[in-house]
Amino acid sequence: MDQAYAQEFRRQGHMFVDFMAEYYKNIDKYPVRSQVEPGYLKKRLPESAPYSPESVETILQDVQEHIVPGITHWQSPNYFAYFPATSSVAGIVGEMLSSGFNVVGLDWISSPAAVELENIVMDWLGQMLDLPKSFLFSGNGGGVIQGTTCEALLCTLTAARDRVLKKIGRENISKLVVYSSDQTHCAFQKAAQIVGIDRKNIRAIKTTKSSSYGLSAESVLSQINLDVEAELIPLFLCATVGTTAITAVDPLKPLCDVAKQFGIWVHVDAAYAGSACICPEFRHFIDGVECVDSFSFNPHKWLFTTLDCCCLWVKDPSCLLSTLSTNPQYLKNEATDQEPKEQEVGYKDWQITLCRRFRSLKLWVVIRNFGVANLRNFIRSHVGMAKLFERLVTSDKRFEVAFPRNFSLVCFRVTPSAVMDKLRTKYKNGTYDQYRQFSEEERTNEFNRELLESINVSGKVFMTHAIVGGIYVLRFAAGNSMTMESHVRAAWTVVQEHLEAF
Amino acid sequence: MDQAYAQEFRRQGHMFVDFMAEYYKNIDKYPVRSQVEPGYLKKRLPESAPYSPESVETILQDVQEHIVPGITHWQSPNYFAYFPATSSVAGIVGEMLSSGFNVVGLDWISSPAAVELENIVMDWLGQMLDLPKSFLFSGNGGGVIQGTTCEALLCTLTAARDRVLKKIGRENISKLVVYSSDQTHCAFQKAAQIVGIDRKNIRAIKTTKSSSYGLSAESVLSQINLDVEAELIPLFLCATVGTTAITAVDPLKPLCDVAKQFGIWVHVDAAYAGSACICPEFRHFIDGVECVDSFSFNPHKWLFTTLDCCCLWVKDPSCLLSTLSTNPQYLKNEATDQEPKEQEVGYKDWQITLCRRFRSLKLWVVIRNFGVANLRNFIRSHVGMAKLFERLVTSDKRFEVAFPRNFSLVCFRVTPSAVMDKLRTKYKNGTYDQYRQFSEEERTNEFNRELLESINVSGKVFMTHAIVGGIYVLRFAAGNSMTMESHVRAAWTVVQEHLEAF
Repeated sequence: MDQAYAQEFRRQGHMFVDFMAEYYKNIDKYPVRSQVEPGYLKKRLPESAPYSPESVETILQDVQEHIVPGITHWQSPNYFAYFPATSSVAGIVGEMLSSGFNVVGLDWISSPAAVELENIVMDWLGQMLDLPKSFLFSGNGGGVIQGTTCEALLCTLTAARDRVLKKIGRENISKLVVYSSDQTHCAFQKAAQIVGIDRKNIRAIKTTKSSSYGLSAESVLSQINLDVEAELIPLFLCATVGTTAITAVDPLKPLCDVAKQFGIWVHVDAAYAGSACICPEFRHFIDGVECVDSFSFNPHKWLFTTLDCCCLWVKDPSCLLSTLSTNPQYLKNEATDQEPKEQEVGYKDWQITLCRRFRSLKLWVVIRNFGVANLRNFIRSHVGMAKLFERLVTSDKRFEVAFPRNFSLVCFRVTPSAVMDKLRTKYKNGTYDQYRQFSEEERTNEFNRELLESINVSGKVFMTHAIVGGIYVLRFAAGNSMTMESHVRAAWTVVQEHLEAF
Repeated sequence: MDQAYAQEFRRQGHMFVDFMAEYYKNIDKYPVRSQVEPGYLKKRLPESAPYSPESVETILQDVQEHIVPGITHWQSPNYFAYFPATSSVAGIVGEMLSSGFNVVGLDWISSPAAVELENIVMDWLGQMLDLPKSFLFSGNGGGVIQGTTCEALLCTLTAARDRVLKKIGRENISKLVVYSSDQTHCAFQKAAQIVGIDRKNIRAIKTTKSSSYGLSAESVLSQINLDVEAELIPLFLCATVGTTAITAVDPLKPLCDVAKQFGIWVHVDAAYAGSACICPEFRHFIDGVECVDSFSFNPHKWLFTTLDCCCLWVKDPSCLLSTLSTNPQYLKNEATDQEPKEQEVGYKDWQITLCRRFRSLKLWVVIRNFGVANLRNFIRSHVGMAKLFERLVTSDKRFEVAFPRNFSLVCFRVTPSAVMDKLRTKYKNGTYDQYRQFSEEERTNEFNRELLESINVSGKVFMTHAIVGGIYVLRFAAGNSMTMESHVRAAWTVVQEHLEAF
């Protein structure tokens, strides 16, 4: 039976590898954003599960015919939407190893390598980011791989909440207040609601152009003072390095200076931009990280690792343990009965779930297969592509870069005056009624929205949008493993062509 | 570049498949429970990440030399510990597809197929379990794939909490009470704590032998009455079908009858045993499911699907949506602006995290590749192996089956009298001092504990233990894809040999 299983794995495994290699070979021939209509798949698949077995050949054929058309091709070299989910051959192979072994990381004995490799890789990665030693296992902190940022926030919020409620009594939970900016990812609000923070105590502090949409320490202080006066209790601040909309950066040091006066837990969410900070020239964006309580970023965004992979470091793991620990009888064994050692971190007590995959394997394979040098080179090349796109935008007077570019994202739009020119030409004699009702700013936004939609419908590239400070922008996010300069230039041509054809 | 990427994927992919096929071929040669010492890996790996790239060949060699020895081989045919993580070639290939496409399921447009296939597969699986139509999309309920049970509990607890707090005011959160048995998985306590339920309001109601360690509706009613008298507010009941320790079953119908009087949300956790319920002869274990609010089970346990995969159905999805929804600007598009249709379920609002892998793909591949008929056959063959082991145990007078077997788990031990015989023989003249201090029950437990440890140290098989009603038992859990009857017989021989050698 072992032999039969191994043989069948070999047969199907090779078949899959060839299938996926063909997919990559042809990936730029598919429309980037899926063009199916809602409900397309229901019409194509049976209403109930098959009673008899179907061959992998049949299934792969159906994947090609029915699934691939319904996929938005995140790995396409012409994909520039949201933030990329930068994958790599090493990442996929690492994930394959993890699902091949399919061990369940409950605790140390359930697979020692799963725990110990995670300890090691999190220290490696912490060093690569030049995190202070207090975040590393070698400095009595430590790191854990979660699925996504929302989980990291949920764990740290719970830890912070219980640390405070232990002192002031659980009945005061409704008085707790959490802080972030109006640019913070909505995962923060969601996590705060889950842990029982009253919605009306979740502060999304307004950011402005003057601080490049970063969270100003002064605004936070004013809000905290108001809350304290109202006898509320400041609990947690989520600072973002590289916001979702326009990659704005909250200034860590000034924010910590304020937060520390009130004993507030400070978490840094660097989901996307954290990866860039392995390059010395970008490291300054997380200056001040030595003052915060916890820090997370997602290698599944921009560090060549497949979904999901969110790395969280804390200075004081005991805060997580005291609130997330469980010690059921069925997991007791000789290892758990002894004093916990660094190598015996029970990751089940560092996260929401009790069981988990061998999460560190793919990250380890990626880091080794690239090496720090090449990880940096690729990050730099992605930033280089964004710079190239930025130059192309600025060289065309009809367009403007709307917000400063910090990393590999360019936020751009057709200028208000170019929009007016275009509308005047298109609707001669001033019959552009649909736009008349709008102010100039609204008109510009609506025009850019329509432009983006026409670009995306073409299927040639896929970009998304943001609205910040009332300005609608098209977002060009570079960073896919298969993207080259030629794709960037082609993408720019697509944008220009669609403006011309408007 | 696309070509180079595809080529490199093909090269490394095939290399990996061969590596993993060799692993499966030799899997029964490894000690099942890892025999490394804590800290073994740190001694073998460098303290920091490599600066220069390393080849996949080198990395795979290190996996073989350094990782494999630190793995507890959950896929070994001689693995009978905890509950198995029953994998399959189809499951692994399905996961490979998912990480190969590496799409991010944020909403419908970010990959229509990821949303729609999950709708379809969850309805398929719901039908396979004969869930009432009210749990299916086709009946205005619906299902979602979460990572693990703890996440499913966290989502439903949050929904239940907010439904009640909306009526009675958030300041009453400290009055909420949740119910389960002392056999319920600790994930429930953990999830309850995370959503802010006061620890002293988390009831783990005592179970007894008279109800085969199932939760009695009468005990629940008594406890609820006490709580209501104390002006607390009953919120949530977690019933288990197939407890972790001994696969006890809570009676759903009587529990619902009680819960409904108080408007309590009832969730069924059938993490392990749910898979068996696709066979008509086991379906009766979830009779009464038509009365509950939510139901979850984990195909990653016993339905041939790799980690992680927990399927959750709810009758009233709007409860999840009203508490877990977020609608940030950057995700707005033509699809989200329209009325939500069945096919446009935004799964980000059904779960904790916002981004997610293409989770349904592997489950779809598994169900099709096996077909319902073979899924049932395999489940039955695993139960058959447990029955075989049970017969072997009962045919040896020195052993006893300690708790009734419901599914594929046998809980057994050396009987108290056989323990005494053994100790008398071993320590002639009554010098078995180390056991003298114990009562007969303690002595029996300690003996069985030592027996299990000696079995596991041998590396020939791996089993774990439970303590229920004061009785320490060895747990034999059948269900691995590579396990055959010969492995079951061999495992029994190992147990007998270790008793003889004691």
